Amino acid sequence: MSKFWNSNTLTLKPYVPGEQPKDKTTFIKLNTNENPYPPSPFVMEQIKNFNLGDLRLYPNPEGAKIKGAVSEYYGVSYDEVFVGNGSDEVLALLFKAFFDNNTLIAFPDVTYSFYPVYCSLYGIPYTEVPVNEDFSIDLSSYPKEARGIIFANPNAPTGLYIKVEDIERLLKDRPDTLIIVDEAYVDFGAQSCVPLIKKYDNLLVVQTLSKSRSLAGLRIGFAIGNKDLIEGINRVKNSFNSYPLDTIAQIAAEAAIKDRDYFESVKAKIMKTRDWTMESLKVLGVEVTPSLTNFIFARIPGIPGPIAQVRLKQEGILVRNFNSPRISDWIRITVGTDEDMKAVVEAIKRIMTENA
Amino acid sequence: MSKFWNSNTLTLKPYVPGEQPKDKTTFIKLNTNENPYPPSPFVMEQIKNFNLGDLRLYPNPEGAKIKGAVSEYYGVSYDEVFVGNGSDEVLALLFKAFFDNNTLIAFPDVTYSFYPVYCSLYGIPYTEVPVNEDFSIDLSSYPKEARGIIFANPNAPTGLYIKVEDIERLLKDRPDTLIIVDEAYVDFGAQSCVPLIKKYDNLLVVQTLSKSRSLAGLRIGFAIGNKDLIEGINRVKNSFNSYPLDTIAQIAAEAAIKDRDYFESVKAKIMKTRDWTMESLKVLGVEVTPSLTNFIFARIPGIPGPIAQVRLKQEGILVRNFNSPRISDWIRITVGTDEDMKAVVEAIKRIMTENA
Repeated sequence: MSKFWNSNTLTLKPYVPGEQPKDKTTFIKLNTNENPYPPSPFVMEQIKNFNLGDLRLYPNPEGAKIKGAVSEYYGVSYDEVFVGNGSDEVLALLFKAFFDNNTLIAFPDVTYSFYPVYCSLYGIPYTEVPVNEDFSIDLSSYPKEARGIIFANPNAPTGLYIKVEDIERLLKDRPDTLIIVDEAYVDFGAQSCVPLIKKYDNLLVVQTLSKSRSLAGLRIGFAIGNKDLIEGINRVKNSFNSYPLDTIAQIAAEAAIKDRDYFESVKAKIMKTRDWTMESLKVLGVEVTPSLTNFIFARIPGIPGPIAQVRLKQEGILVRNFNSPRISDWIRITVGTDEDMKAVVEAIKRIMTENA
Repeated sequence: MSKFWNSNTLTLKPYVPGEQPKDKTTFIKLNTNENPYPPSPFVMEQIKNFNLGDLRLYPNPEGAKIKGAVSEYYGVSYDEVFVGNGSDEVLALLFKAFFDNNTLIAFPDVTYSFYPVYCSLYGIPYTEVPVNEDFSIDLSSYPKEARGIIFANPNAPTGLYIKVEDIERLLKDRPDTLIIVDEAYVDFGAQSCVPLIKKYDNLLVVQTLSKSRSLAGLRIGFAIGNKDLIEGINRVKNSFNSYPLDTIAQIAAEAAIKDRDYFESVKAKIMKTRDWTMESLKVLGVEVTPSLTNFIFARIPGIPGPIAQVRLKQEGILVRNFNSPRISDWIRITVGTDEDMKAVVEAIKRIMTENA
């Protein structure tokens, strides 16, 4: 602690990301929802073709080519897109643009654990609305006075999905509430809310290239919404950092969005592996939620989550347990390759046998 | 404007960076203080050797290898270094960590124009202390009640340098004021305050790899200070974005800091070109400040700054004029190659002749 920390800095409880082991070859790494497949060959080719000498120059300050590719992919306008240094930065900037100590924001008690961290960073009052026993979200129970509602869809770490029709009803019922749908995992079988931004000026959709497009290492996220909302985020971004996306990230992101065939094939492989793994775990008696993401949320009978995490690490597999009352019995397992997931099923089988 | 903008977002006046022309080959681009030379060959080799397939994985969240290289280069500890997504982000995070609406911060009226923008972003009260007529800074005139003092050293866009002894006197006189020295341009002939961080817990030094290490395109900045100060910035960073630096930026930055020979040779070339240009401009009757940076601050007799900027653009040369009362007569010219600067001198000569 330093006497120069301000009162806010003193109270912060920063977000803790999943472990990044120094020796990545020792473990099957299924703890941070990374894609098991490399970025598209077209992405790698575009990076290789870039003249590295040009790194002496500043990048495009607004990520123009990524915005162009996103707007083409989703059929929205250029000024309906914001891009940032990972979807975490996009979220951090939009919390700053739209909320403050006078605005209540609501989110599920079980969801991405960065949301309350942003609230403490900016002194935003928040309320956590309990998810149902089966982890499903009942949007009608959210407080009417909330200025903002945010949730991940599909939700993390539960994997559950809210139908677009249900979100549309919320948008219609709460025209004065900003609804933020964090679609980090939407590409693995769920339906996106992006088309609704044309109809509702109270909707922001956030996505990332870290999961479905295999670019966690380059930090690219984006938001899509009404152009006045996007302009608000731009004002904050341009008061924070003029050039948040570097030149190579911009080249890679544009190429990744344009290579639709590779994207479709990787998603299909991951969904197939996920469904096989879920079925295999159910056969063992492991409880799993119906996931539409690139991870599986699982409870091993008789083995508390923290112990399951440690035991799997001993088996050479990294998964994530969240130290949070309602989900402490559960572990989140990223969907890897078929080989990775066979190893997971075998390891869980061994652990359950030893425990019997 | 959207009804969802909060009261702060409504009042922001974002920073405006220098123009990034779409067709970079049309102009001699001397408007954003980029390095005319490419990054070190060692940097390019390290990037080429990286397995692009690994971009599917998250980067190291704290930029560990950059911290290691900086601490080795400067002889400070690992936990005395913070790295961020460009020095603009480093500044944005440290303003948030140490100042708020209860703390006054002071800076020169002529300096990097992002400082007042950070203050409006976070509602930090600030006072601008006038520089002397010759643009020099008198640190003794800064208000005693300021919680923080920030200035660029050498200063931008004036190029003037404050001696380390004078800064040390300030550090000693104001133990309860956090002194932030923004050394973006320190490598071009000035002396760094970094060694003082061991002695003073009220000093933070900020640097960037964008200028002297030719990596503007990859966005890497760092701060060095007492470990408790660094921990404060880390708390904010980890409440904002866990992974601000991408994998390729981390590889490049580490290599750039390690290749000292290339760094020294590039700096020497730029300083030599700068000194030649300053002398040549003086011979023409152009007023220049004694710059210890990679830019020249110049006033062409009889030609107001905004007109000089437009005329030079017509001559194919981009420079920057700041729309600020005390310096509107001046232009800032980045030091390019010898060839670039010969073109600048010739162009200014033509403009002056036409005007005569």
